[in-house]
Amino acid sequence: MKAVLVIGDGMADRPVKELGWKTPLETARRPSLNQIAKTGICGIMDPISPGVPPGSDTATFALLGYDALAVYSGRGALEAVGSGIEVLLGDVAFRCNFATVNGKLIVLDRRAGRISNEDASKLAESLQKVRLKKPSNAEFLFKNTIQHRATLVVRGPKLSTAVSDSDPEEVGKKALEITPLDESSEAKLTAEIVKELMHKFREVLMQHPVNKERVKSGLPPANIILCRGAGTIPDVEPLSEKYGITASCVGAASLVKGVCKVARMHLIDVKGATGTPQTDFKAKAMATIEALRTYDFVLLHVKATDVASHDGDISQKIRLIEKIDQMLSYLLDHVDLDSTYLAVTADHTTSSITRNHEGDPVPIAITGPYVRRDTVEQYDERACARGGLNRIRGMDLMPILMSLIGKTKKFGA
Amino acid sequence: MKAVLVIGDGMADRPVKELGWKTPLETARRPSLNQIAKTGICGIMDPISPGVPPGSDTATFALLGYDALAVYSGRGALEAVGSGIEVLLGDVAFRCNFATVNGKLIVLDRRAGRISNEDASKLAESLQKVRLKKPSNAEFLFKNTIQHRATLVVRGPKLSTAVSDSDPEEVGKKALEITPLDESSEAKLTAEIVKELMHKFREVLMQHPVNKERVKSGLPPANIILCRGAGTIPDVEPLSEKYGITASCVGAASLVKGVCKVARMHLIDVKGATGTPQTDFKAKAMATIEALRTYDFVLLHVKATDVASHDGDISQKIRLIEKIDQMLSYLLDHVDLDSTYLAVTADHTTSSITRNHEGDPVPIAITGPYVRRDTVEQYDERACARGGLNRIRGMDLMPILMSLIGKTKKFGA
Repeated sequence: MKAVLVIGDGMADRPVKELGWKTPLETARRPSLNQIAKTGICGIMDPISPGVPPGSDTATFALLGYDALAVYSGRGALEAVGSGIEVLLGDVAFRCNFATVNGKLIVLDRRAGRISNEDASKLAESLQKVRLKKPSNAEFLFKNTIQHRATLVVRGPKLSTAVSDSDPEEVGKKALEITPLDESSEAKLTAEIVKELMHKFREVLMQHPVNKERVKSGLPPANIILCRGAGTIPDVEPLSEKYGITASCVGAASLVKGVCKVARMHLIDVKGATGTPQTDFKAKAMATIEALRTYDFVLLHVKATDVASHDGDISQKIRLIEKIDQMLSYLLDHVDLDSTYLAVTADHTTSSITRNHEGDPVPIAITGPYVRRDTVEQYDERACARGGLNRIRGMDLMPILMSLIGKTKKFGA
Repeated sequence: MKAVLVIGDGMADRPVKELGWKTPLETARRPSLNQIAKTGICGIMDPISPGVPPGSDTATFALLGYDALAVYSGRGALEAVGSGIEVLLGDVAFRCNFATVNGKLIVLDRRAGRISNEDASKLAESLQKVRLKKPSNAEFLFKNTIQHRATLVVRGPKLSTAVSDSDPEEVGKKALEITPLDESSEAKLTAEIVKELMHKFREVLMQHPVNKERVKSGLPPANIILCRGAGTIPDVEPLSEKYGITASCVGAASLVKGVCKVARMHLIDVKGATGTPQTDFKAKAMATIEALRTYDFVLLHVKATDVASHDGDISQKIRLIEKIDQMLSYLLDHVDLDSTYLAVTADHTTSSITRNHEGDPVPIAITGPYVRRDTVEQYDERACARGGLNRIRGMDLMPILMSLIGKTKKFGA
């Protein structure tokens, strides 16, 4: 028995006036999603708990069965791990954006026009050449991931995650100075190092040929690095030990890959999987089918729906849900549903209107040989709420799946 | 975006044979409640957890998003705070009843015929004149609140809440002696002080002209004070800081006002709001509308339904639910539902048959611009159980409301 968990990032939404008070999911043509609902057991799920808007990192921990409130230690380190940077215990890692500011450091674009991977790579290469002042004995690693996203890892003795962000997280606000968040010498040292890096990065970026070229082409220059979410890697029980399974992840978003790597899952690189709306859905489906030959459990994550939601692009979100549906059609055609359970959910609700993660529950459907099939015939936020799973929490999902494939241990005798 | 939470105290019930196995709520004419259900998202809610009958104090803490099991420290202090007595950290406060006993201290009426506020005030004034023996260095404050209800606050060095009640909580039983509940000198001292007060109070009451007058008029004399629920004030995070909102409470019941005050909410005094079945429902609705101009969140609490339930007066309970419905009609007419979420629930089930708080869940409906409207068309215990919220816990409600008005912080990234 095997299990596949498909996560559409931010796929759930709230009713939208322009869609006649339907959600994008309710509006999308979704024959495969509906088939999974129809042949499966459905419900709604609070990734963390009712009303709490989760990040993709905390939600993924929860959906893998971990107590996110207990294990979460900041996004930066997870993003770094996911982007292939080796993060050691004790390292402090930050989530960074290439961004555009004016001369007074007011943020004009937090994503530098969603800078291309190519431009970002060239800039990152130059930033890695920056030299830190000697006394701290610290080193750093800077690496771009997808588009404007990047990670910074600071390594050295006696560092702390208790440092503030430089990212004001809002256009029109000024980039912030990094400050220590407690009185410890570790926090002061870390703040000093990161402050120094931010200033030196800015100098390099302002002079950089890539940015001169961007301005010439009418593109916003990536003239500052904004960082946030200082974190370390959490020390969790590997998923394989937790459930006695072999597990792998098909996905491109660094943050989710980071969570999976921390859970010691095998990461499968898929050519054409980009974490953007242009990602190759079919390649991911094929990689999942391939992975099922080897692994008991495969997590298939699609980032693109969340990107469209954050952009408030409702029709794009609908199109991407339809692409997920086609991807699921391939899975349904190629998975042996006599020996495989297929679960589909979202990691959180992202409102296309507020453009934020919201605390509303997400739909969940599980199909497979021995589920208690219910009367739900459609896969969406409201139809699934009438399903046989009722309302569960994110961290309940993995035990449910593992129980279906016979991998849970009895509690008691 | 604003939010109003309307709480009908003990409004939920169990099916009643005399009503053709319907509940009072299912029987009442309730067009406004039904409209809220119809245009909203519905569910059932366990104020604390399934099967646990909450008090109005613990339930209100939970409905405000606090972990009642962690913060609750007894009813007495909350009642005292709510009735306008300043309670300091370290004070021990009791919930008291004016009651009627016979010569052998057997309780004949735990509410002294629901004594009028006027009579109770005169008696309380005399009781406050009692002098404690010197050595304890303690002081006390005694104040009547609504009808037979009163509060006693004992203030002094080295007091304890570990003392027993004098209230047997049942007609036909004998008033109890106050005893310390542990071996500490603080508990012994507190028990001695309260015992002394109870005896001196009884002496004053037996001689009092108000009681002589009551007996002449055929009313039960308030010839004893019964006390219970020794407590201190809990030190909770103010609601405004917890959610970044301004918050106020429209309600007359001291206990609920106490909880709101401990949560540092602004208390709004409404002329004509009495906490009794004669309360001015429209005045409370108007005060709520007025409060919405200033506050992000308004809690509107109606005590009367619980009073009718404890009296086992089913037709009165139905009438009061219909008055709540009319109050909601005013709210629906005057609230801007494009920018306001309106939630209606009960703080607990009170059975008109057992006349006690019970552990059954309560109905909950939330209407407002972006809720995932469901197919429920009626507001009652059973119809709401088929709604899109499914089954939630009391402490989940506030995060859900705060998420709808954009006031929750994301957990993770």
